[in-house]
Amino acid sequence: MRVGILGGGQLARMMALAGYPLGLDFLIVDPKPDACAAALGEHLVADYDDPDALDRLARETDVVTFDFENVPETAARALADRVAVFPPPTALAVGQDRLHEKQLFDRLDIPTPAYRTVDSRPELLAAVEQIGLPAVLKTRRFGYDGKGQAVLRQQEDMERAWQRLSGRALILEGFVDYQAECSAIAVRARNGEIRFWPVGRNVHKDGVLAATLSPWGNEAIAEPARQHAAKLLEHFDYCGVFALEYFVRDGRLLANEFAPRVHNSGHWTIDGAVTSQFENHLRAVCGMPLGDTAARGVSLMLNLIGDMPSTRHALGLDQLHWHAYGKAPRPGRKLGHATLTGATAEALLATARTLDWPAPVVRDALDDLTAGLRG
Amino acid sequence: MRVGILGGGQLARMMALAGYPLGLDFLIVDPKPDACAAALGEHLVADYDDPDALDRLARETDVVTFDFENVPETAARALADRVAVFPPPTALAVGQDRLHEKQLFDRLDIPTPAYRTVDSRPELLAAVEQIGLPAVLKTRRFGYDGKGQAVLRQQEDMERAWQRLSGRALILEGFVDYQAECSAIAVRARNGEIRFWPVGRNVHKDGVLAATLSPWGNEAIAEPARQHAAKLLEHFDYCGVFALEYFVRDGRLLANEFAPRVHNSGHWTIDGAVTSQFENHLRAVCGMPLGDTAARGVSLMLNLIGDMPSTRHALGLDQLHWHAYGKAPRPGRKLGHATLTGATAEALLATARTLDWPAPVVRDALDDLTAGLRG
Repeated sequence: MRVGILGGGQLARMMALAGYPLGLDFLIVDPKPDACAAALGEHLVADYDDPDALDRLARETDVVTFDFENVPETAARALADRVAVFPPPTALAVGQDRLHEKQLFDRLDIPTPAYRTVDSRPELLAAVEQIGLPAVLKTRRFGYDGKGQAVLRQQEDMERAWQRLSGRALILEGFVDYQAECSAIAVRARNGEIRFWPVGRNVHKDGVLAATLSPWGNEAIAEPARQHAAKLLEHFDYCGVFALEYFVRDGRLLANEFAPRVHNSGHWTIDGAVTSQFENHLRAVCGMPLGDTAARGVSLMLNLIGDMPSTRHALGLDQLHWHAYGKAPRPGRKLGHATLTGATAEALLATARTLDWPAPVVRDALDDLTAGLRG
Repeated sequence: MRVGILGGGQLARMMALAGYPLGLDFLIVDPKPDACAAALGEHLVADYDDPDALDRLARETDVVTFDFENVPETAARALADRVAVFPPPTALAVGQDRLHEKQLFDRLDIPTPAYRTVDSRPELLAAVEQIGLPAVLKTRRFGYDGKGQAVLRQQEDMERAWQRLSGRALILEGFVDYQAECSAIAVRARNGEIRFWPVGRNVHKDGVLAATLSPWGNEAIAEPARQHAAKLLEHFDYCGVFALEYFVRDGRLLANEFAPRVHNSGHWTIDGAVTSQFENHLRAVCGMPLGDTAARGVSLMLNLIGDMPSTRHALGLDQLHWHAYGKAPRPGRKLGHATLTGATAEALLATARTLDWPAPVVRDALDDLTAGLRG
């Protein structure tokens, strides 16, 4: 069975690594000649809406999926007329626009921070008036890893943020002074079966995920986190892996955003769950039965950001699993991740805090997670 | 770091799948255009002693290893003059000849069945006289998976076996009426550190490995099994993964043969150990620290032999891990393996015996393993 993937980044790479053992192979479309999944499949160097590339996907693959949610909706829909495309293009389209995403949260009674659409300077003033400060001005489309965002803490921040972001459709969101972040990672099969991995606790730094500890073990949060995600999965008649990220404030969840794909906060499942998110995503989109999503012990995932530590040094720690993405170093870029597996969160964090190679933001995240255990 | 692999079968394929996350990529030499590892690296279609292929390996890779032990010794040695080659060609050379292998077992005080070299009909008669029947006549070189062997149960079998196998250098081995088979899988780092995975119990049928249960939990056997293997590793100043297969008769070990490479009886480590044999082989040959070889629960590995069950059917079982090799079906051919992971051998075997898709020889092997638990 041949799977087409739009996007050839690390998610496609880890999908392919999980897919060969299932007997799959891959046709990967990515405009970048150095796409890091290229070595693991046939790589078509083409834009995501290139008609020839889409035609080859339609003719040569059994199902098409995404490593990247910003594929043009029209391309995804045109493809879906000719070949099975999962997740459904509608989920992609909604996820591409923060306003539509928030409106869907509202419609499905999923709590989310206050928000207002902002298309002009008067609308920004009115939105700040209604929501109050601090607040976050965001582009509605094409934001990721904290890009396309500005935090407004005081009135003076407004003008600078407007200068930087205006000209694009914007949304103002209430700033959530959260105590924790978490995500629900689910998989839904073609037949409608849904399975969840345990809910993990995430720490972002500078808008980028730094670390995930999973299972978090906070069942008061996990149950509603799963319920909200399940509503979205049913709404979209979804197929594949889906991630819903939350802020946690005063013991209550506020949905931040969803990703219609495998997700960085689910990378721990490769080493820490019976079946990884990558394998279950492929099982789902290929119409195979889902694998067991139970955790095997506790996992702590650390992103490798900006530059790669030496494996000769870092791999000296037992129970450390290394995942290099084969990408060139660049400040702030996700180049890989490492997962520590063990019996308790306390032991994992104590070990992780002795390491000298995680990036400073990741070491800060470990401090936050450790404080979270005590708090 | 680029790794060259001589041989592009399933062992190279699983090595590559384990190696990309370590930041490695692969140049694979195999004369078969449809070699099943080809999709996972750059594939040079060439014989193992092709001078141009060897020259490219020497110039373009950092270290060369094997998925296949019958690479010509001269080629391996010539390569070792120009680039790091692990395991050492000497281990390959000894492993290629059953006589030299047995003589080394003797020299290192590793118990092994009685044997005599056989180069003529009178030598066969004399060997049968000395060893007694039943016995096994084997080619000294190029045997695998039970090929190049004939069991002599009575005098009349001698002539047929001689007709079939003569013309090649032969060895006669005493037939071991064993109660069990097991293997020690070890990895030795460049710095000499040795780690063992738990010793697993194997069942061969028709000369082909059908199933492995690991950890076996028979510590009276495991300790000497490790000691014998360690002697061989030190003798060769070995680097990489090494497997030593044993017969167990009346609670004592008899070494059957070694493999200077990752081994089918270690495939369970992908899903059932902290670090797989494939990852640790690459860590060793690339000079990285070794990973933890501890088991995670109990694993039962079943080979997929002759034809591939449908994944839509077989994957319906939780805790089942699937490993397709991407090979064309052929009677008796190893096309993949499946590993069940769980808490106890009893539960795994009970579950496995309800399955309708394993090949008949594998179902027989499950009966043997179940009887072994009771016996």
